[in-house]
Amino acid sequence: MKLSALGEFGLIERIKRSIPASPSVKKGIGDDCAVIKLRNDNYLLLTCDMIVEGVDFTSRDKPRLIGRKALAVSLSDIAACAGVPRYALVSLGIKKDASVAYVDQILKGITQIAKEFKVDIVGGDISRARDLTIDVSMVGEVEKKYLALRNGAKVGDGVFVTGSLGGSRYGRHLTFLPRVEEARFLARNFKVHAMIDVSDGLLQDLGHILKESKVGVVLYERSIPVHAQARSFKEALSMGEDFELLFTVARKEIAELTKKVSWVTPIGHIVEKKFGLKMVDGSCRPRDIDPRGFRHF
Amino acid sequence: MKLSALGEFGLIERIKRSIPASPSVKKGIGDDCAVIKLRNDNYLLLTCDMIVEGVDFTSRDKPRLIGRKALAVSLSDIAACAGVPRYALVSLGIKKDASVAYVDQILKGITQIAKEFKVDIVGGDISRARDLTIDVSMVGEVEKKYLALRNGAKVGDGVFVTGSLGGSRYGRHLTFLPRVEEARFLARNFKVHAMIDVSDGLLQDLGHILKESKVGVVLYERSIPVHAQARSFKEALSMGEDFELLFTVARKEIAELTKKVSWVTPIGHIVEKKFGLKMVDGSCRPRDIDPRGFRHF
Repeated sequence: MKLSALGEFGLIERIKRSIPASPSVKKGIGDDCAVIKLRNDNYLLLTCDMIVEGVDFTSRDKPRLIGRKALAVSLSDIAACAGVPRYALVSLGIKKDASVAYVDQILKGITQIAKEFKVDIVGGDISRARDLTIDVSMVGEVEKKYLALRNGAKVGDGVFVTGSLGGSRYGRHLTFLPRVEEARFLARNFKVHAMIDVSDGLLQDLGHILKESKVGVVLYERSIPVHAQARSFKEALSMGEDFELLFTVARKEIAELTKKVSWVTPIGHIVEKKFGLKMVDGSCRPRDIDPRGFRHF
Repeated sequence: MKLSALGEFGLIERIKRSIPASPSVKKGIGDDCAVIKLRNDNYLLLTCDMIVEGVDFTSRDKPRLIGRKALAVSLSDIAACAGVPRYALVSLGIKKDASVAYVDQILKGITQIAKEFKVDIVGGDISRARDLTIDVSMVGEVEKKYLALRNGAKVGDGVFVTGSLGGSRYGRHLTFLPRVEEARFLARNFKVHAMIDVSDGLLQDLGHILKESKVGVVLYERSIPVHAQARSFKEALSMGEDFELLFTVARKEIAELTKKVSWVTPIGHIVEKKFGLKMVDGSCRPRDIDPRGFRHF
């Protein structure tokens, strides 16, 4: 069945039927705007991520996983702020000759992970496009005391990463689990000074923390956790799409965090800005590093 | 200058520099999430609209106007709920060989209308795309008492439209003024029962109100305001992209609204659902109408 047979409104109806709304959604899909009742004065988090065929996935990837990824990258952004994801808007740019079955699989991927992370899909837009394009906007909430941004790193902080890095573009970029639970655990139990998700590669994303926090870093080369799927150490540094959390905690919490939490690895420490980005190997000779990762252009 | 010379982060820096943030934006562009302080318990409005080259505009259109339209359609959605637009996220899918000057013009169009309507651009995403694609997500607020949706029309209501309809796709679709002020005026001074913006064409959008409100309508054919740029009456009914407000008010307010507000036109009245969508001409013979407008597929 071609999309043309279903029509835009048929497609919207289809989406609407497959997505239940929580009581706080006064109006979800099917009006000009989604209407949300806000309960308290937490911070609201807003993020959006656009994924495009040929850039972020290929036409051979499973449509269910493409839909899943579209939402997962925004979940990862909310996680990077230590927030709780709440609502999402989904804009779909669909090829004219796409089959309804294909679009249904995309929607299935979106709704499954939305359900898994208790996110309400509250609206969206559909357009024609030459390449499949999915743009997800997500609204999250975070308690003021838990908010973690890129600009909070302090000299002396320990630098940590969840999981392991590299090789994600060979497949894991479609199936990774956004670190929402992990981020919440960290924020509740430790003082997270700065946090970011590793989307463009460890070095590049770490570079964002350094720049925003006006600090430098020394990385321990041998400590960086390399994923089994990585084909080189370089991939762990700069391939990107890992969607792990990269964060810093105060010096006095380094030991406890390292000891108590098995799924994080200490990979360096924050130093003064003038040192830039340095790496030490076994010989303890720090060397300068070029923080280049994936570039869209 | 090609985008490749500037790079993704250079482009983000460029956007960041050109966009100031209001005091309520704790964190705008340049982190994983935008962080907003919410002041009260108004409803939050969320909407997103994706515009794609070859569908919603052409490569010959001025890039400044393309950027403007991207934001304007979301402003129109916020207006349709009688809300005040506040924050926007902008996802840009840009061609690899686009010039920086071209992208700057798009950004200029976006930021100019954002400033005009006091909207903060608080984040976004940039990706490569074969066709220029802009997805805008907007957050607005509305007082509970002013919220206007599609489902509030009552039998006996008068049906009104702002401005005039038809011919927008010949150019006005790039330059229209979102009816935010008008919607706020109407909500403050009248009891707006149902409201929608005319994006898919009068008949189709009216159809949404009928469906959601479970009512029918009788339209006065000779009252429908046809824009000077329209080439036929049919265009006023179903060409779409007018972005005028279509709304209903209680029977007792019809006369006052008609008399006092020069920029609205009464075009019909709400009847029971069983009558469907009917039109009367000079002969007062109601006839059935097919509510078809623009279809994306």
